[in-house]
Amino acid sequence: MTGDKLPTMQAVAEKAGVSLATVSNVMNQPSRVAPATRDRVRAAIESLGYIRNAAARDLKRSRSDGIGLIVPDILNRLFVDMARGAQITAGQRGLSLLLANAVYAFESFDPLVVTDQQDQFLDFFAEERTSGILYAAMSDPTDGINRIRGHVRPIVVINYDQPGDWCSVLMDNRQAGRIAVEHLAGIGVRRVFYVSPPDAAQPIADRRRGVAEGAASQGLELTEVTTDGLEFEHGSAAMAELLAGRADGERIGFVGMTDALALGALGVLREHPELRIPEDVAVIGLDGTHDGARSDWVSLTSITLPGYRMGEEAIRLVLDEAQPGHRHERVILPVGMRLGASTLGSAATAGGADGTTP
Amino acid sequence: MTGDKLPTMQAVAEKAGVSLATVSNVMNQPSRVAPATRDRVRAAIESLGYIRNAAARDLKRSRSDGIGLIVPDILNRLFVDMARGAQITAGQRGLSLLLANAVYAFESFDPLVVTDQQDQFLDFFAEERTSGILYAAMSDPTDGINRIRGHVRPIVVINYDQPGDWCSVLMDNRQAGRIAVEHLAGIGVRRVFYVSPPDAAQPIADRRRGVAEGAASQGLELTEVTTDGLEFEHGSAAMAELLAGRADGERIGFVGMTDALALGALGVLREHPELRIPEDVAVIGLDGTHDGARSDWVSLTSITLPGYRMGEEAIRLVLDEAQPGHRHERVILPVGMRLGASTLGSAATAGGADGTTP
Repeated sequence: MTGDKLPTMQAVAEKAGVSLATVSNVMNQPSRVAPATRDRVRAAIESLGYIRNAAARDLKRSRSDGIGLIVPDILNRLFVDMARGAQITAGQRGLSLLLANAVYAFESFDPLVVTDQQDQFLDFFAEERTSGILYAAMSDPTDGINRIRGHVRPIVVINYDQPGDWCSVLMDNRQAGRIAVEHLAGIGVRRVFYVSPPDAAQPIADRRRGVAEGAASQGLELTEVTTDGLEFEHGSAAMAELLAGRADGERIGFVGMTDALALGALGVLREHPELRIPEDVAVIGLDGTHDGARSDWVSLTSITLPGYRMGEEAIRLVLDEAQPGHRHERVILPVGMRLGASTLGSAATAGGADGTTP
Repeated sequence: MTGDKLPTMQAVAEKAGVSLATVSNVMNQPSRVAPATRDRVRAAIESLGYIRNAAARDLKRSRSDGIGLIVPDILNRLFVDMARGAQITAGQRGLSLLLANAVYAFESFDPLVVTDQQDQFLDFFAEERTSGILYAAMSDPTDGINRIRGHVRPIVVINYDQPGDWCSVLMDNRQAGRIAVEHLAGIGVRRVFYVSPPDAAQPIADRRRGVAEGAASQGLELTEVTTDGLEFEHGSAAMAELLAGRADGERIGFVGMTDALALGALGVLREHPELRIPEDVAVIGLDGTHDGARSDWVSLTSITLPGYRMGEEAIRLVLDEAQPGHRHERVILPVGMRLGASTLGSAATAGGADGTTP
């Protein structure tokens, strides 16, 4: 600890031969200081390597220049995109984005048990008097936000739809389920299996609702299959079961709540060369995390999520909070679709470009 | 802004019927306060929703409880692993890790031109009097660190080998190149092509050196191919050129500085069913970012990097900095290897488990 060795404002004042007040003015209201004096003080600051103590500065205005973004886990590509969108936008506005990764982990789906540090980070950012907090919540954020509300005003809730005294940035998870099923109907699939864990979180429930809406509007036969996870192996197990029950020549569609589930399903099909993709079995994933790897043996069709734009919007809204006459917004961003051979066969360019949403 | 509406320490004191000093003691040295008084004050803090102002607290000890980690870009899986390792370890020690993503971007390799905000984040964390900084630098960090040294003592430099007044956490990039070539020699490859951009950053130069060392020790014929990027398409272009110059029946090995380069090479081989993998052409990548996707048409053998452990080590060292008698360490962590069909053929389980390093 070298706290006592720090160059002080006093040292700057002495070296420049001016008063403390003048040094303070040079740093905070330079226009009020004569140019010559200003240059002398700045030279002293430079030569001493003085950095104003942000804690002292913050105490005055009770704010730091940082904006905190709390995400469940950057292992999920959605939150990497969200963080980059927010960080690049914040940088353009001269603000520093601090990312707090909660390392969210499902321990079980039914009932939902999670370990994460989201709540602790909320307190941390409040204590640090961060200028604003972007909170990508996995559960109802109301209690946590109420606890710190008096300390950080601008808060934007991301990816969790809960009415409250804040702005929200959401993606259209129902649309994700709906357009996936509509796409399958469009290629002639009449029987759809929706493979998903239980509704442990909002996006899971919303995608399920969207799938049901799409199936109803298209008049498809929908069967829901519940898994106890959202990874590759859970998708493989589900597909193996479907094939066991599949009538000869029947055409089926597999919709995975995540790309990993869909990839697991494709893994099983690989061991069944007698089954044609997509003529016998079509597969689609709903979270776009697989990112259309061109090394896939069959490129996956999947829904792409607007993570980057969610980050951009969240910064816009958190800054608008500070404006007079601000009114809370609830922004819902559309999803997209990446077309692959898992629904279009050789017609699709491997790892094809994003399609647009209907 | 509701700064004026914040519940104050004064309000807590009044509600609890004690002095300001007593409230302060309850928060900072509770053992010095009678239990009954302590409970009364804590009840008042609770009911008023008072959160001590970290800026005021930091001003006293001139430190916050946060540790800053600056990374080039979490788009690269290495830095996601690093951030998670550091964050989980910091959480276990009761510290909050703040991730600053510099959104590092290569604009050209030769000469190296980059855009990033790493230096700005260094100043930001210094201004905020962060307890420590973990700095995954892409270029010589000496000037930046010297600039802020008086303000933040514990600094750990990650992934950039530069002697200085700090601890370093590195991975063995030479070993990465060496064991990749040794692996190819082990399966009978005698002619190796190393495909990499110019030495714009340390890891690139170190992997190249390791490849050369491995080729020399194994007596292999080594040809270096320079690309102007490290993505899929650059690898495809390089492989297309190699095949054009390949003598009939000649067995060659392709070593990509990144997995993306190696995957691009495999993409070209897919259009040449007459070529057997790995009997005619073997392929390996050096950065493990592809993570052995089980959906690959041919699973890739690649070197795995110790990102998570680098994060763990960096937290251990930054905390040790605060200990009396601390001596700087230079930690070099070994890499691993993930075996795939691109070098072992059907002998490899698709996306096989990590091998150990020789």
